[in-house]
Amino acid sequence: MKFCPECAAPIVIEIPADDTRERHVCSACKTIHYQNPKLVVGSIPVWTQDGAIKILLCKRAIEPRYGYWTLPAGFMENNETTSQAAQRETEEEAGANIALHELFSMLNVPHVNQVHLFYRATLLDLDYLAGTESLEVRLFSEQEIPWAEIAFPTVSNTLKFFFADLAKVKQGGNYELHTHDLFQAMRD
Amino acid sequence: MKFCPECAAPIVIEIPADDTRERHVCSACKTIHYQNPKLVVGSIPVWTQDGAIKILLCKRAIEPRYGYWTLPAGFMENNETTSQAAQRETEEEAGANIALHELFSMLNVPHVNQVHLFYRATLLDLDYLAGTESLEVRLFSEQEIPWAEIAFPTVSNTLKFFFADLAKVKQGGNYELHTHDLFQAMRD
Repeated sequence: MKFCPECAAPIVIEIPADDTRERHVCSACKTIHYQNPKLVVGSIPVWTQDGAIKILLCKRAIEPRYGYWTLPAGFMENNETTSQAAQRETEEEAGANIALHELFSMLNVPHVNQVHLFYRATLLDLDYLAGTESLEVRLFSEQEIPWAEIAFPTVSNTLKFFFADLAKVKQGGNYELHTHDLFQAMRD
Repeated sequence: MKFCPECAAPIVIEIPADDTRERHVCSACKTIHYQNPKLVVGSIPVWTQDGAIKILLCKRAIEPRYGYWTLPAGFMENNETTSQAAQRETEEEAGANIALHELFSMLNVPHVNQVHLFYRATLLDLDYLAGTESLEVRLFSEQEIPWAEIAFPTVSNTLKFFFADLAKVKQGGNYELHTHDLFQAMRD
């Protein structure tokens, strides 16, 4: 941010009175323009057939991580809820019809000022279709997950948490919320 | 946003190619300036003495809702995690030393483009002290909570979820994550 979005005057970086952090402050109208983390929200679409469980992944058609695989997810928009964002992103990126369940994982990525949320979901049919941001969409069993080609650590962590919980669920346990902080830099 | 923060040219509202929503787009450099929801993060500081449980609330010294009571909470900053934000806001607003526990509630407030997160916390001592954004900080038992003077619906909902879970915990149950969407307009 170089210019004030309200009056177009140059921005200065300074610590306002009654604050402890450097902010983007307008040199003319003195408006403080706060910068805050963004939410990235998606789902874990699960397809079950004959007792076998598969997860729907999308091959990214956009940077960053073009050509790598991800769970359907994207930036939350204004005027929607986190579950609406998860449903919307799953429809946009995977063309998938899902029933959304509970929040499954929350991962902090402070290096990039993001918090990622993933909801458990049931894939309702096989009519999925790659959206404009996906090259390909397909189902993977746990053994088929392309771990070396997963786009983001938040996705690989969520998948690992999911399969670990799934083993417990098969023994009569429950899915649980997983919260995790990723302090290493994201790969670009 | 009226002017481009990158080049100071006027902003126009339009739907970019490959998008479905109106965005703030620079008329000169064509940069798209996305607007996204913000995270508000806080804690539920619990003090237990002789089996009696009390919650630490802050009387707001700032607008909105000046003079009303809230759990310590505030906007998450860049370069921190959600739990770091909860701990920082509790220190800033209530001067409170806490041990932070698990995420307890996530409340969507799409009308104001916010997602509120509250963590359970144990108050470690009674050396709390009102920060610059609080008029007063004090402990309340469930019977003493000033329900008509709670600043925000996300706080009253979180307190209600907490006391409902507390009754279950006393019977051998557990605290659970509560997710809730508040569609009514926030009071100002």
